[in-house]
Amino acid sequence: MNFKFLASTLALALSTPATADVLVDNVEGITIGADGEIQRFSALVIDDDGKVARTLTSKDKKPQTDYREDGGGAVMIPGLIDAHAHVMGIGIGALTLDLSDTNSLQEALEKIRLFAAENESRPWILGRGWNQEKWGLGRFPTAAELDSAVGDRPVYLQRVDGHAGWANSLAMQAAGITAETKSPAGGRVERMTGSQQPSGVFVDAAEELMTRAIPAPRPNERDLAFAEAQIVLHRFGITAVADMGTTIEDWQTYRRAGDKGALTLRIMSYAAGPEQMELIAGARPSPWLYDDKLRMNGIKIYLDGALGSRGAWLKQPYADDPGNTGLPLTGPAKLRNILVRAAQGNFQPAIHAIGTAANEDAVNAVAEIAESFPGDRRWRIEHAQIVDPVDLPKFGQNGIIASMQPVHQTSDRLMAEARLGSDRLGGAYAWNSILKLGGRLAFGSDAPVESPDPFAGLAAATTRMDADGKPFGGWRPEERVNREQALAGFTSEAAYAGFAEGRFGKLLPGERADFVLVDRDPLLASPDELRATKVLETWVGGRKVYDAD
Amino acid sequence: MNFKFLASTLALALSTPATADVLVDNVEGITIGADGEIQRFSALVIDDDGKVARTLTSKDKKPQTDYREDGGGAVMIPGLIDAHAHVMGIGIGALTLDLSDTNSLQEALEKIRLFAAENESRPWILGRGWNQEKWGLGRFPTAAELDSAVGDRPVYLQRVDGHAGWANSLAMQAAGITAETKSPAGGRVERMTGSQQPSGVFVDAAEELMTRAIPAPRPNERDLAFAEAQIVLHRFGITAVADMGTTIEDWQTYRRAGDKGALTLRIMSYAAGPEQMELIAGARPSPWLYDDKLRMNGIKIYLDGALGSRGAWLKQPYADDPGNTGLPLTGPAKLRNILVRAAQGNFQPAIHAIGTAANEDAVNAVAEIAESFPGDRRWRIEHAQIVDPVDLPKFGQNGIIASMQPVHQTSDRLMAEARLGSDRLGGAYAWNSILKLGGRLAFGSDAPVESPDPFAGLAAATTRMDADGKPFGGWRPEERVNREQALAGFTSEAAYAGFAEGRFGKLLPGERADFVLVDRDPLLASPDELRATKVLETWVGGRKVYDAD
Repeated sequence: MNFKFLASTLALALSTPATADVLVDNVEGITIGADGEIQRFSALVIDDDGKVARTLTSKDKKPQTDYREDGGGAVMIPGLIDAHAHVMGIGIGALTLDLSDTNSLQEALEKIRLFAAENESRPWILGRGWNQEKWGLGRFPTAAELDSAVGDRPVYLQRVDGHAGWANSLAMQAAGITAETKSPAGGRVERMTGSQQPSGVFVDAAEELMTRAIPAPRPNERDLAFAEAQIVLHRFGITAVADMGTTIEDWQTYRRAGDKGALTLRIMSYAAGPEQMELIAGARPSPWLYDDKLRMNGIKIYLDGALGSRGAWLKQPYADDPGNTGLPLTGPAKLRNILVRAAQGNFQPAIHAIGTAANEDAVNAVAEIAESFPGDRRWRIEHAQIVDPVDLPKFGQNGIIASMQPVHQTSDRLMAEARLGSDRLGGAYAWNSILKLGGRLAFGSDAPVESPDPFAGLAAATTRMDADGKPFGGWRPEERVNREQALAGFTSEAAYAGFAEGRFGKLLPGERADFVLVDRDPLLASPDELRATKVLETWVGGRKVYDAD
Repeated sequence: MNFKFLASTLALALSTPATADVLVDNVEGITIGADGEIQRFSALVIDDDGKVARTLTSKDKKPQTDYREDGGGAVMIPGLIDAHAHVMGIGIGALTLDLSDTNSLQEALEKIRLFAAENESRPWILGRGWNQEKWGLGRFPTAAELDSAVGDRPVYLQRVDGHAGWANSLAMQAAGITAETKSPAGGRVERMTGSQQPSGVFVDAAEELMTRAIPAPRPNERDLAFAEAQIVLHRFGITAVADMGTTIEDWQTYRRAGDKGALTLRIMSYAAGPEQMELIAGARPSPWLYDDKLRMNGIKIYLDGALGSRGAWLKQPYADDPGNTGLPLTGPAKLRNILVRAAQGNFQPAIHAIGTAANEDAVNAVAEIAESFPGDRRWRIEHAQIVDPVDLPKFGQNGIIASMQPVHQTSDRLMAEARLGSDRLGGAYAWNSILKLGGRLAFGSDAPVESPDPFAGLAAATTRMDADGKPFGGWRPEERVNREQALAGFTSEAAYAGFAEGRFGKLLPGERADFVLVDRDPLLASPDELRATKVLETWVGGRKVYDAD
């Protein structure tokens, strides 16, 4: 046998569409073309490497392929990309007990007991979602009541709003809580009536007394949580995520999955601070690993806090707290130092900025640093929620990508009005303004803070109405984006925001074949229909990773 | 073009020796056969995956291959495996200034000045090897003298024996050293004559005052150091190493090299403690990564200290320090806990044990734990230097691998006699006894504590004489091993000790083509000739990674 002949035959074969092994046929395909315009197609050809060989319209002749997959007339869109989520948070959340559907203390206790029995290997039972008001209890539940459900292990369950936690006796014991334990500033240790004995509920800042005692997840729990996160995200049609605040433990979890061939989600990673960035990636961003499934792109920087807790840093005091403007979590000098350090290593910074002062400092810092570090940097500002209108043009002027979460707008609008007053919201969730002023938008969910559902995000982005259709006509509707812009925000623009264009996001030939089959056309569906979209199948790299059946 | 035809043609092609791409011809090959016997061959065929297709004798017909490499009559042996080394220590050592060849203070200062100028980006200048006696100085050098060579950065240089360090003024300033700084127990801060002002030299335990101020290496320094370590090791014919005490920073360095295709050394990694093990590998050992180049096998456990500092844990007091028996660094209960935790995850423990009490506790602990965790565990004891003869049979009885460093015996024999007295050395460096009693031996160097040169190790193993031929006839020569056993200790047995048999170590068909071309036959050379062996070429996975020319 002549090897040279074989080698050249093989090379030819690999470059010939005839070797493509999958034809996904009979779909109503929608994607974003090379120039950003919507393209429609009826079939997709996947090559041996799991990449898009080509898309076909009904006029094209069907090629010979090894396998043909009938799309059954479903709508095919590019795999959805969440430009801002917390992957391990999603997974760990998915593994904890959810009590939000319980209607009485008895029902909750029974559910807790069952969950503990089903999860014997877990050293702590953790959960969330209880609401004594919904139960009609008229008081907080007690540790003794929780002991009656689980007496062999510590249990700690957060209230539905996250502002209180309910512990059993073993959990309080593990945390060293006694009658002598004082309530910390900003928090309250609930007590038994007529006694100093803690009752089992810890409010606000007192929660920390309990949560610091909860052991960090074991590696096998992390692996399980990550597997769960992948399932959750694929179920929503999500094929790629920007993971905001990756720790070394998170990274090792992703690598373990990659090393054993179990990584099905694409992760663009932003490290949880400079030390984690360096420990994970070294002096430069990692290469794309595992066939474009994992890359350490850059660094997440918290410039301020959140609006709800009045931690967002504002130019003027809070309307509902006149002495307070919030605070920078990262001071101006430190921010610039971190940006320089990131830029020197070609790491991409992703700056969390919620309030007007934070956004001003972020755009100014980028403008300053970009002078010394020109080139294709793709500076990101995460959230960019409340921007002073005078600062909006600086996004486009400095090549800044606004990485925003449409559902935050619908969840937060009433709070934003309370915190700032309606006359200071000219640059609030200003998607359309940022676009019109030459900036770029990437869309995400901030899951697990919100649901990762991108169809809720698409609906919010195009309507500025919530799931109940409120407010009718949309809140500050001039900041809506159109359907094409919204879809791009959750696909091609989210890929661009992670330096992944050409790898995935558009279903262009040569890109990874990441796509979703859904039961309706997101460019035609009404907002309510859009929210009700059913994901039928999710494919990553030419492989089906989720099937609704 | 018909893909099915192509696929089957290709499959056939890949299974046919005709596709093997390299024939290394005209060698005097020596390897260890499947049953441990020495085999000789004259050519090696490497397949497309860099694996051994077959070895050929002069009687075999030469196959058709794409490339033929003429071995020029050199001796080919399997790639040498160091069963106990510290890879990053080797690399970092190779990057620091070596003053051991300087003959005067002036010459040293000039060399320091030059090194600092050539290494402008390094924030600290670090080095070792000075000796004021060799310089004829009659006193320690001073910080002021060092300032005259390097005044812009901190400098810290260890004395040749590692028992003192010499700092410049900026280094002392960085460490917060002033006239008020006290000498710690077991150490001495040298002072200027007639003054409390520190002179710049720190002896024994006082070295810690300085070394804790030295910043950890930056990732790019780690990458550079690792690249250097690979070069150093390949130059000695070493193709694989058991890395003893891998930290997460070390591991990330190895992965960075692997991710960019720059990993040429095979690393069997043993984590620096349970936390590092879990952080690096998770709940189970990693898979073999990068074509068998990297695996987290298990955990390094320090059971005691070293003989020189009387930290080795002995059954009876030191002969030269009658009140002292040394101490366990890991107590019996903790050792057993770590062994259980490792065994539960299928991690392989590698227990550092130097003294008689440490070795007794190690073999006993293994015997106890092995009852609950049967199977192929390959418990390792590292060093196993001074074993009570009554404990020697327990190695074989419990399937324990003694991972030993032949050169330690020749370096330490006089010290061992001083520490224990000659009548307590019946189980000292007892290579042959361990083998005869059914134990297994893996050989290494403990580099950078000793040179990684495996030919020095082979010579010591077979003669128990040092490089000067002392003592004539060998120290306790009954513990010599024969040449075949020594070679196996540095090849096939070192692979077995790291669960790597079948992957590399024997040049069997299907194993990675890791081999060395040398200028003499290690089974025939005299001890002096063996020590002078010249490595001509080193190959890893069918690729040349070192060429002496």
